[in-house]
Amino acid sequence: MEVGLLYSGGKDSTLAALLLEPVADVTLLCGTFGVTDDYEHARAAADAVGFPSERLDLAPSVATDAVEQIVMDGYPRNGIQQVHEHALERAAATDFDAIADGTRRDDRVPTVERPLAQSIEDRHSVAHLAPLAGVGRSAIDTLAEAHLDIETGPSETVSKGDYETELRALLADEYGRERVESVFPSHTQSRVTGRR
Amino acid sequence: MEVGLLYSGGKDSTLAALLLEPVADVTLLCGTFGVTDDYEHARAAADAVGFPSERLDLAPSVATDAVEQIVMDGYPRNGIQQVHEHALERAAATDFDAIADGTRRDDRVPTVERPLAQSIEDRHSVAHLAPLAGVGRSAIDTLAEAHLDIETGPSETVSKGDYETELRALLADEYGRERVESVFPSHTQSRVTGRR
Repeated sequence: MEVGLLYSGGKDSTLAALLLEPVADVTLLCGTFGVTDDYEHARAAADAVGFPSERLDLAPSVATDAVEQIVMDGYPRNGIQQVHEHALERAAATDFDAIADGTRRDDRVPTVERPLAQSIEDRHSVAHLAPLAGVGRSAIDTLAEAHLDIETGPSETVSKGDYETELRALLADEYGRERVESVFPSHTQSRVTGRR
Repeated sequence: MEVGLLYSGGKDSTLAALLLEPVADVTLLCGTFGVTDDYEHARAAADAVGFPSERLDLAPSVATDAVEQIVMDGYPRNGIQQVHEHALERAAATDFDAIADGTRRDDRVPTVERPLAQSIEDRHSVAHLAPLAGVGRSAIDTLAEAHLDIETGPSETVSKGDYETELRALLADEYGRERVESVFPSHTQSRVTGRR
């Protein structure tokens, strides 16, 4: 089974790839709106853990809408969810037998509830696989620590290849750096630099 | 991470083991109420796919209660769920770092919703892993076919090492064979006989 996995270079999506590796041919899909080159961080992480990767072009209008949503809400949750659903649709429109992501049991965002997964499967004749949907945060941390080399730091300095980096850049451009700080709470990011 | 995975010898729990194999030391736990020796089918399947296995003793009173529930309901769903939750509790009380099962995204029973998983994790200081919780039935069939040798047949003739076999036997003893047919709809069972 040829699987395209939405990949940020972080520990969740990398661990998802490790779980699928024994049963599928996994290609890591590094999404980008073309706002920055940060998706290259994801591609570098893919190389470091030994998986093939591809650039996945996302629609710039979706990023613009997401930034507006985030500014209106005052928090990023809904905007990030919109972007993730768009990325799933884009991935599902490619030629893979299945698409996958690193969404976790304890995540509030992004989530892929069963009706959304089945809708994508039905419309695109593709399977959706979320190998961490039944795995909690603490177990993921333990497994990632045992199997991956990880660089961690605050989200402003550790650049991943995820949507957040580009949304932050777009938001800073349109509304200024201070607005970024007020709507994107600073949190610890992880970037994978290799396998243990 | 030492993981104890509730194991029936069927394709779901075997596939769950394959996904966890790269990141954990997996032991397959073959539950039995001591009603029949059918758990040995699960141990044979464990040997055939090359995982260590252990017998997991379940409380006979739980089987008796489940059979009463099933007869009262006229269908097996609630009884099976009770037994699965009991098996998880028993597994969680052992020395593994994590317990796991093969519950799937599209299953109606057994299910392990997030509150139940977190309750087990909190009370037993153990993680719960369900690597197929974000995988649909059709993808599981495709993956199982690609990676496992599987014998299939109606549930009356293909004996697995799962709860259903012992519950059916208990029900036949107490209420007669005909009652088994009326409350357990015949369905196709799978038993794993090796890896491809």
